[in-house]
Amino acid sequence: MEKLEKYNKQLNYSYTFGAFVTFELVKHKSESVIKILTHSKLKITSDVESLLNLCKKNNIEVVENDKLITKLCDKDNCYVVGVFKKYKSEHKNNLEVMLVNPSDMGNLGTIMRTMLGFEFLDLSIVAPCVDYFNPKVIRASMGAIFSLNVVEFNSFEQALNQNNFTKYLFMLDGTNTLGKFKPLKQNVTLVFGNEAHGLPNTIKQYGESVVIKHSKNIDSLNLPISVGMALYEFTK
Amino acid sequence: MEKLEKYNKQLNYSYTFGAFVTFELVKHKSESVIKILTHSKLKITSDVESLLNLCKKNNIEVVENDKLITKLCDKDNCYVVGVFKKYKSEHKNNLEVMLVNPSDMGNLGTIMRTMLGFEFLDLSIVAPCVDYFNPKVIRASMGAIFSLNVVEFNSFEQALNQNNFTKYLFMLDGTNTLGKFKPLKQNVTLVFGNEAHGLPNTIKQYGESVVIKHSKNIDSLNLPISVGMALYEFTK
Repeated sequence: MEKLEKYNKQLNYSYTFGAFVTFELVKHKSESVIKILTHSKLKITSDVESLLNLCKKNNIEVVENDKLITKLCDKDNCYVVGVFKKYKSEHKNNLEVMLVNPSDMGNLGTIMRTMLGFEFLDLSIVAPCVDYFNPKVIRASMGAIFSLNVVEFNSFEQALNQNNFTKYLFMLDGTNTLGKFKPLKQNVTLVFGNEAHGLPNTIKQYGESVVIKHSKNIDSLNLPISVGMALYEFTK
Repeated sequence: MEKLEKYNKQLNYSYTFGAFVTFELVKHKSESVIKILTHSKLKITSDVESLLNLCKKNNIEVVENDKLITKLCDKDNCYVVGVFKKYKSEHKNNLEVMLVNPSDMGNLGTIMRTMLGFEFLDLSIVAPCVDYFNPKVIRASMGAIFSLNVVEFNSFEQALNQNNFTKYLFMLDGTNTLGKFKPLKQNVTLVFGNEAHGLPNTIKQYGESVVIKHSKNIDSLNLPISVGMALYEFTK
């Protein structure tokens, strides 16, 4: 393999920084792991021991390389790095979240973690959007990304036409109020717009528009908060 | 007034960076505003015009000072800065959120914004905790902080004893499941622990413990997501 570079979107591999997230990588996507890097300062806690055992079981190479970790990771206290090949996923379930043009890496990771918590395992992302394999997204997801099926689409139309699920379109002037109707429990897509602009009004025809009622004192709810409330309500 | 310094917790004043947040400051806490700084690159949009009119109405000094803005603000594209005296608030309502030892500024701001959206206007914070007047908190709150009554307490006991509201204690092994009981609609405190540790089990005696059910695939929900779900459910 070529020399490992500091992360950028063009690379066909990415990184997990820290033992917790690296454990999630090896547990769920061992076939994509290239190698694990450790730092000489790494303390062998029970978590780290579990990770090292899991690597052994999966014949994954573990290499101590302080210099390389310092080069790859901006944070000082990062002592484990997972290196993995980017992989393609397919949707496999009947509960989906679709994010149209998400632009914040922390938000995207938080949404992934919440989805896993409410067993929505299929995520569609419509470009242009942040790079979902960026280590910052992975960190914010706390490794949840490796348990989800994430598929990126080039256009909203493509994403809509992938299946015939009922689309619930979350928008400020939605017709239905979250909590006031009985949501379907399968073949469902929860669709959310970009952090700044929301969903365009023109797409109302593609499904059921939904509003989460809040006071007029704020313009809108934060995106991961809205997704969280929707996931909570749809899985009750 | 002495020379303005880059923000640190010890200062008895703080800053708002950007026109939107500065507008919220002047609108809700004009009596605490010291002055407004503008940059020569500031474009007079309708939002900026509203802000300048509001300053005029409140006899607030507006000073152009590019050098000072560059010194105070890390971001390059910040063209309006509000300077304000830190102020004390008192709780005035019967719907309260209590955060025990919150440690993340972005989370704290996001929670403030969500509280304002669901008309929970009284926030108690138990030290040790992040500095709630830090400009990063203010920015994450999108100015919601200026519409809330935020009170910091030195201990959990002090915070508990300030009123006789019913405490709903959110914890992973709570007895009541959110959504499965009828919550009180007034004289209510929603209590949440620190991001990493949650609430200690020993405090169960002080109120009704509540769990937000999620799958075992994640250890816990992100703090602002949990608060958001609780606010949503309690105000339905």
